[in-house]
Amino acid sequence: MKLLSFLPPGSPDGPARYGAVTDRGIVDLTARIGADFPSLRALIAADALEAARRAIAAATGADHDPAEVTFLPPVPEPQKIWCIGVNYRDRNAEYRDNSDLPKYPSLFVRAPTSFVGHGQPVVRPRQSEQLDYEGELVLVIGKAARHVTAERALDHVFGMTLANEGTVRDWLRHGKFNVTQGKNFDRSGSIGPWIVTADELSLDRPLDIRTRVNGELRQQDDTGRLMFPFADLLAYLTSFATLMPGDLILTGTPTGAGARFDPPRWLVPGDRVEVECTAIGTLRNDVVDED
Amino acid sequence: MKLLSFLPPGSPDGPARYGAVTDRGIVDLTARIGADFPSLRALIAADALEAARRAIAAATGADHDPAEVTFLPPVPEPQKIWCIGVNYRDRNAEYRDNSDLPKYPSLFVRAPTSFVGHGQPVVRPRQSEQLDYEGELVLVIGKAARHVTAERALDHVFGMTLANEGTVRDWLRHGKFNVTQGKNFDRSGSIGPWIVTADELSLDRPLDIRTRVNGELRQQDDTGRLMFPFADLLAYLTSFATLMPGDLILTGTPTGAGARFDPPRWLVPGDRVEVECTAIGTLRNDVVDED
Repeated sequence: MKLLSFLPPGSPDGPARYGAVTDRGIVDLTARIGADFPSLRALIAADALEAARRAIAAATGADHDPAEVTFLPPVPEPQKIWCIGVNYRDRNAEYRDNSDLPKYPSLFVRAPTSFVGHGQPVVRPRQSEQLDYEGELVLVIGKAARHVTAERALDHVFGMTLANEGTVRDWLRHGKFNVTQGKNFDRSGSIGPWIVTADELSLDRPLDIRTRVNGELRQQDDTGRLMFPFADLLAYLTSFATLMPGDLILTGTPTGAGARFDPPRWLVPGDRVEVECTAIGTLRNDVVDED
Repeated sequence: MKLLSFLPPGSPDGPARYGAVTDRGIVDLTARIGADFPSLRALIAADALEAARRAIAAATGADHDPAEVTFLPPVPEPQKIWCIGVNYRDRNAEYRDNSDLPKYPSLFVRAPTSFVGHGQPVVRPRQSEQLDYEGELVLVIGKAARHVTAERALDHVFGMTLANEGTVRDWLRHGKFNVTQGKNFDRSGSIGPWIVTADELSLDRPLDIRTRVNGELRQQDDTGRLMFPFADLLAYLTSFATLMPGDLILTGTPTGAGARFDPPRWLVPGDRVEVECTAIGTLRNDVVDED
């Protein structure tokens, strides 16, 4: 199943609805089961995928053309959005600090306000010309998880989506110890287009990931080369925190972000960024300047 | 007004309610205006303090004895919880890295799962003996804020509360660039006891802050000595992100955390941590070991 959150045509201010992307178009699940599960996050928390499946099966036709709705991040307001800092092997080498493979994952946090959905403009802020792309695979948590073993960790994954973990490079080191600022500019990144549920994925086999800017391939790798595979990430994260239904984990970006070119290739207004994974789809966003 | 979120006696699993602490006891606002504003966060977002005021004035007596309810963090699930890393002048000196006063605030993020409410046990995790206290003053955002000037910033403050920004020291540097892990252990910190609304505070004058462990004064300072005063923090944060109603900003801790003693004085089960500010009240939590 492909599940999304969206605004229907003519309702730019919400409230957000959720639905399923089918061959026929978008089936509006808010209209069918929204009284019981008011949001996609609530559906996930209630472990009610079967109710969505029945509603989709009972629907005749579809409610919306995907081209006509406004895509939101699939979980518009998760409790947590955790980001893994350096996870693909080549990316660790990029830092050229002679460090061995790290013992633990690097971890930071983004706010929901820092992301837009598929097809929405990503914003280069007034204060910087260093907006950069980072294509990533995203885990969406299903059942709450604490102290899970790597062996059982993937049972807690509801599905996966994609992110452009857009970064304002010259604001990453504003603070002494953390990258928070450069990772949290409003609408500087994107998540989507939808969640592909875990039953349609092979989470224990490598997934591909590619990022294109204006059609040019900039990042390409696969999860067979992660230093911290998904199951290990979840075991580590749940060793200190409870992962909640709808929580997102951005699993790290491959080598090839714009900062690593000489000279750097920052995003400029009009650029199109596409993040894709064969099993999930393509997340596409154009860059605009802040008003 | 003093506003809290709580669980009434006999409802340990929720749902959360909110109310006002008055001289007579707790007036349950969920019972009175919960249909319109289902949570304290929703009340703040609707700018509906006047509705709360009327409901309190109309109440005869009170619904609960504060001693009998379970206090939750006043905003149990804010969109963002941002923490300022080093803000009191003496604390910057503590790092002894010969750094000048920083140009920008240090900023990291905590998840709601890392906090409990007033009176609830704070948990020392299995993996570490280095649980430490950090008493802090907390800003609660009222009206959404982006690109606000320092001159107008305090207009966006709904009120204030207190935090013990409990930290697991040996997990702070697990990752290469961020302190996320050591700041996000489940139930390692606390927020509360309530929000004192801005109309009852003088936000432009220094507020005192003290932390006691088992009655012994460990931290004491006032906000006249902040490197980044509240208004400047809000102007800086909103230069890159939109602050939303109910967002929390933990404004930094004074010198005197347990890590700074020689040998360090970590918290152990049975310890009582109290964070107090004359204008707000006292946040009190006892330490237990993880099950």
